[in-house]
Amino acid sequence: MINRLNREIQKKNAPIVVGLDPTMKFIPGFIKEAAFSVYGETLQGAGEAIWQFNKGIVDAVYDLVPAVKPQIAMYEQFGIEGLIAYKKTIDYCKSKGLIVIGDVKRGDIGSTSAAYATGHLGKVQVGNESFSPFDEDFATVNPYLGTDGVKPFIDVCKEEKKGIFVLVKTSNPSSGEFQDRLIADEDNRPLYEIVGRKVEEWGADFMGESYSYVGAVVGATYPEMGKVLRDIMPKSVILVPGYGAQGGKGADLVHFFNEDGLGAIVNSSRGIIAAYQSDKYKEKYSESNFADAARSAVLEMKDDIASALDKR
Amino acid sequence: MINRLNREIQKKNAPIVVGLDPTMKFIPGFIKEAAFSVYGETLQGAGEAIWQFNKGIVDAVYDLVPAVKPQIAMYEQFGIEGLIAYKKTIDYCKSKGLIVIGDVKRGDIGSTSAAYATGHLGKVQVGNESFSPFDEDFATVNPYLGTDGVKPFIDVCKEEKKGIFVLVKTSNPSSGEFQDRLIADEDNRPLYEIVGRKVEEWGADFMGESYSYVGAVVGATYPEMGKVLRDIMPKSVILVPGYGAQGGKGADLVHFFNEDGLGAIVNSSRGIIAAYQSDKYKEKYSESNFADAARSAVLEMKDDIASALDKR
Repeated sequence: MINRLNREIQKKNAPIVVGLDPTMKFIPGFIKEAAFSVYGETLQGAGEAIWQFNKGIVDAVYDLVPAVKPQIAMYEQFGIEGLIAYKKTIDYCKSKGLIVIGDVKRGDIGSTSAAYATGHLGKVQVGNESFSPFDEDFATVNPYLGTDGVKPFIDVCKEEKKGIFVLVKTSNPSSGEFQDRLIADEDNRPLYEIVGRKVEEWGADFMGESYSYVGAVVGATYPEMGKVLRDIMPKSVILVPGYGAQGGKGADLVHFFNEDGLGAIVNSSRGIIAAYQSDKYKEKYSESNFADAARSAVLEMKDDIASALDKR
Repeated sequence: MINRLNREIQKKNAPIVVGLDPTMKFIPGFIKEAAFSVYGETLQGAGEAIWQFNKGIVDAVYDLVPAVKPQIAMYEQFGIEGLIAYKKTIDYCKSKGLIVIGDVKRGDIGSTSAAYATGHLGKVQVGNESFSPFDEDFATVNPYLGTDGVKPFIDVCKEEKKGIFVLVKTSNPSSGEFQDRLIADEDNRPLYEIVGRKVEEWGADFMGESYSYVGAVVGATYPEMGKVLRDIMPKSVILVPGYGAQGGKGADLVHFFNEDGLGAIVNSSRGIIAAYQSDKYKEKYSESNFADAARSAVLEMKDDIASALDKR
């Protein structure tokens, strides 16, 4: 799957992942009204609105990008009905040829991580039958519990030829609170570098053609740290959140890429799916053109990254 | 809810939480057969088996313990159908007067943590209506993203009078890989102490009668660290996993408690729910008496902890 991700990035010339993180306020009124008219103002109505909104976005951008990243929290907040929309979205994206990165940030003790890995990336056994419950292609993983919380994901990935992205340096303002702490017996290097070295170690044992199946999450909001981490993990694809609404710009991203033009995939969520509400696009696009606005935002992001990479 | 948790611990004289972590191999054959005979060997069949198994355990122990802790991964591995069983379990436990700690270990950037907090502890708005999707009483939270990943949970808890347990030092063998790293500018104190101090700080702002609504997770498998963390976070209830199957014993637990006999709640999962399969109980209990075996295991655990506390 990591080989396919790289091929798709090259084919579409877009190291871009669209974050499918729907909230009620991003969804156009006419979609909500249609959903509520059938299911009422219920969790099921919300699930239907999310699903119709996602479908519109996906139909407008699937030919431009290699991958999507649904953030499961945005679905989980609507309970079971939200998660049904999450699963529908995964299946639909895959049917359109998109690679699906489940942004689930799971991580637990060994046996529990194994259950998460099974549910999201693997197959679960029920009697003599087996099922792939959520069936994303990649998942994000939280490393706080250490190797035995991460390894079960890698074990499942080896069977399924899928991959993970381990949180190394997250994009949020307080990510430094623990991640930047300087480790005394590691020459005072920050914790995120120690985690980065583990990612490299885990990945060395699970290589695709030129990149490992074990990627990393490093926020666009910390470009200098991205540069250091790029060197520490040369064979890992870095999933870069924080572009756009969180403040990251194209010029900040160049250090996340390797010389081969690969090694990074940049996520934008709000900047794409809610483009029609942004100052930049709201004159040109009305609510009913939300999908066209998303397409324009993807094209603009593609240009922004390409021109930043050209200039380096 | 933290006041209620402490009152229930005192009333039932049992600082014990039963971990409802069902796996197919823990569930007696007759329960699986009954479920599969209706729903087939499907995810729905697995969900039904899990639910019937949980119901049997809960009916046998609800009068003995204050709380249960379903581990959501064990349900999530069966996809939507597993999560339906998770929700049914939560509702049933609450109807039996039990406090429900959702072991979800979520944590993300601010807006995403807010969505998780809403889905598990809060109310989500759909049009003019609001819903409590999963509605656990407490949730476990991963701190790797720092304060802005934890605060949204606290904000929701303040509205709902619910609480969280933040992962500080987990029970698994490799938890030390990152959590024990010595922090250079903190007098070489380990990271888990720095996280513990943050838990104390977050909790100071959100106190119940004698304990804060912000608890901590510290594994029974690390009793000496538990002693230090007890001092660092005097007002936090420590949720202690790792008793029983993971190796923790009653004598290891005394340091997790305060002098008032409160301040800790000890989890056992496999040791209780799969007691009928253990060497100790399998002579006395057959598969059909799985619930009686669970009750015996709770009573024995209660005695083990009480006698360890008496001896200190």
